[in-house]
Amino acid sequence: MQGLGEAARAAARDMARAGSEAKNRALRAMAAQIRTRAEELLEANRADLAQAKKDGRDGAFVDRLVLDAERIEQMAAGLEDVAALEDPVGTITGLARRPSGIEVGRMRVPLGVIGIIYESRPNVTADAAGLCLKAGNACILRGGSEALRSNQAISACVRAGLKAAGLPENAVQAVATADRAAVGELITMHQYVDIIVPRGGKELIERLMREAKIPMIKHLDGVCHLYVDDRADAAMAVRLADNAKTQRYGTCNTMETLLVAEGIAAQVLPSIGRIFLDKAVEIRGDDATRKLISGAKTATEKDYYTEWLAPIVSIRVVKGLDEAIAHIARYGSRHTDAIVTTDQARAERFLREVDSSSVMVNASTRFADGYEYGLGAEIGISTDKLHARGPVGLEGLTTQKFVVLGHGEIRS
Amino acid sequence: MQGLGEAARAAARDMARAGSEAKNRALRAMAAQIRTRAEELLEANRADLAQAKKDGRDGAFVDRLVLDAERIEQMAAGLEDVAALEDPVGTITGLARRPSGIEVGRMRVPLGVIGIIYESRPNVTADAAGLCLKAGNACILRGGSEALRSNQAISACVRAGLKAAGLPENAVQAVATADRAAVGELITMHQYVDIIVPRGGKELIERLMREAKIPMIKHLDGVCHLYVDDRADAAMAVRLADNAKTQRYGTCNTMETLLVAEGIAAQVLPSIGRIFLDKAVEIRGDDATRKLISGAKTATEKDYYTEWLAPIVSIRVVKGLDEAIAHIARYGSRHTDAIVTTDQARAERFLREVDSSSVMVNASTRFADGYEYGLGAEIGISTDKLHARGPVGLEGLTTQKFVVLGHGEIRS
Repeated sequence: MQGLGEAARAAARDMARAGSEAKNRALRAMAAQIRTRAEELLEANRADLAQAKKDGRDGAFVDRLVLDAERIEQMAAGLEDVAALEDPVGTITGLARRPSGIEVGRMRVPLGVIGIIYESRPNVTADAAGLCLKAGNACILRGGSEALRSNQAISACVRAGLKAAGLPENAVQAVATADRAAVGELITMHQYVDIIVPRGGKELIERLMREAKIPMIKHLDGVCHLYVDDRADAAMAVRLADNAKTQRYGTCNTMETLLVAEGIAAQVLPSIGRIFLDKAVEIRGDDATRKLISGAKTATEKDYYTEWLAPIVSIRVVKGLDEAIAHIARYGSRHTDAIVTTDQARAERFLREVDSSSVMVNASTRFADGYEYGLGAEIGISTDKLHARGPVGLEGLTTQKFVVLGHGEIRS
Repeated sequence: MQGLGEAARAAARDMARAGSEAKNRALRAMAAQIRTRAEELLEANRADLAQAKKDGRDGAFVDRLVLDAERIEQMAAGLEDVAALEDPVGTITGLARRPSGIEVGRMRVPLGVIGIIYESRPNVTADAAGLCLKAGNACILRGGSEALRSNQAISACVRAGLKAAGLPENAVQAVATADRAAVGELITMHQYVDIIVPRGGKELIERLMREAKIPMIKHLDGVCHLYVDDRADAAMAVRLADNAKTQRYGTCNTMETLLVAEGIAAQVLPSIGRIFLDKAVEIRGDDATRKLISGAKTATEKDYYTEWLAPIVSIRVVKGLDEAIAHIARYGSRHTDAIVTTDQARAERFLREVDSSSVMVNASTRFADGYEYGLGAEIGISTDKLHARGPVGLEGLTTQKFVVLGHGEIRS
């Protein structure tokens, strides 16, 4: 791992110097390699799949692991999409002349070396590498050991693309061992790695949070709320609650708890309850909710802390905005929270006072996503407050330094 | 400490809601309190000074600890200066409509709770608190135990100012114990503290780096370089080298190593050497340097890693830009580095490739400072790459979250 670290550091210096054109050429060459070597990728993947089945892995696991023609094309097209994104590196902003005569601004520069730790989804190898490279970084990829052959095959395509564009192959290195100790080393060697991006389930994130000595772009939970204010458009509230919960159950920006102001509860909760129960969504509510939705179960204190990732929803009737904000502060995970209201002042208070990475007015929490936000692509979502917050795209893989343009000025 | 943490978290919620006017009123009221209670402050400080002398503290220590009429006025004026700065909180930038119909932008918001750990300079109590509050944060102040009485007296003025403006007094809490274990708690209670800003010498920073579980805005070393390119204005190079080294010896942005291209060494080093030796600056150079400056001592490998903070300078003659960049990457501390050159392409390469928090062309490294950069004031300088990098002002004490303004949009 130390060797990988040193090689990554050296490659990062070359990548930081690379122009947009070379980086885009590399990304397109990678896409071409992936298409050309599709059969090799499928073969490597078949070996991984055979092993996974032998190990008795479940259907969901195998589904994540599998590569097919469609997923291979998605990887290639994804790399081309990243090539088409604007290069954030090198732009100088805010340049202003100071009374001393110097001009001071900030230049956007790559972070350096990024460690990506992910589970057995081979497509992450291409997706994450593409974003890291476009932002001028080197990366070390550590995918799930069950996808080792698939990842190595994809990484070979990526490295061939780098080489074709005259960029250092070591800007992407996939850890070639299934040894779990490699992760422990990767997340602590801060002389070589500037940031860690974990992609995976809660168990992975929790382990990394305990052990990492390097900052991470990560979120642990997505306990997202939709608060229906008593000054809401009732039809809109029903539509948003439905979409935020049921459009997809397993995503981190899915609404897990619905808060409803008591003044509008009788107007909206029966309709919302009917929709949820029709879609077989289990409802866990407080007393006021259960009076309005027959078929709702009793919510426990713990339910309100829970990220269901399933067709289950917690509902609570609150007095109004203050109680909603207090509930979110206590039970939420600082991921994404939305208010439905027609009252501008209340919307502004919600936006300002709810301390989450995304705060929304009259929109579904499901929009919290790099593509939906226009970031082009997303390496992950961060609920931490420092550096990148919310969906993280190319810009979150860069940093800024001060540049000073002088004309011989000295300080007196 | 847990109690302080909880109280700070609650106060931070109120501060985040506070408008600019209330915050500015508080800052001005603090300044008035400090002026009104000057005699109380001096009395508390006299008690600290008496104890310090009894404990046999040296002159430099006592000098940092002492309050006098001038320093008290500086604290008060400093708070008024912060009141006059623009409030970064609440501004929304980059708001753009997406194809889905939602508008997405970013809102600047306070970080939350900031822990300030500093040595026995009582003025930091007012200076740091003022910046934290203006950015809408609460703070917990832990100054050197030798300044305990002075800090408590200043903190009482600050809290009185908060109260006068109707803001929570607990937005500023000065730890009232000299027990060193309090620091250990402060830097690990991440449920209550969002960021730590250490203000002090290397020993303090090193200890905190080992023990902190909370991100810090900090720098360890300031091994700053000035590189004189062979395409430099020789007179400018001499002037900048002089200023960068000798304008002040003890600051972190002072040049510690001078790198000179071999093509211009004979032209500039004799003059630079004369100036340094006239000012009793000890020169430690490589062979090429010592040939041009009689009186220069032999530099060791270790000298090039050293932050002198004293009238000592390391000098090395290098082949050109590449060797200079490589030297800085190896021996530098990513703080501030400058090039003297008339060649635009080389200037641009230096700016882009030197991975430091401030990179400069034709200016003295001494300019790396929040006031000189126009940040208004500075809470510290960061050499880390994440969040804030370089001099950190009000903006570095805030973060951004995504705001989404919808009109009932759902995701399909």
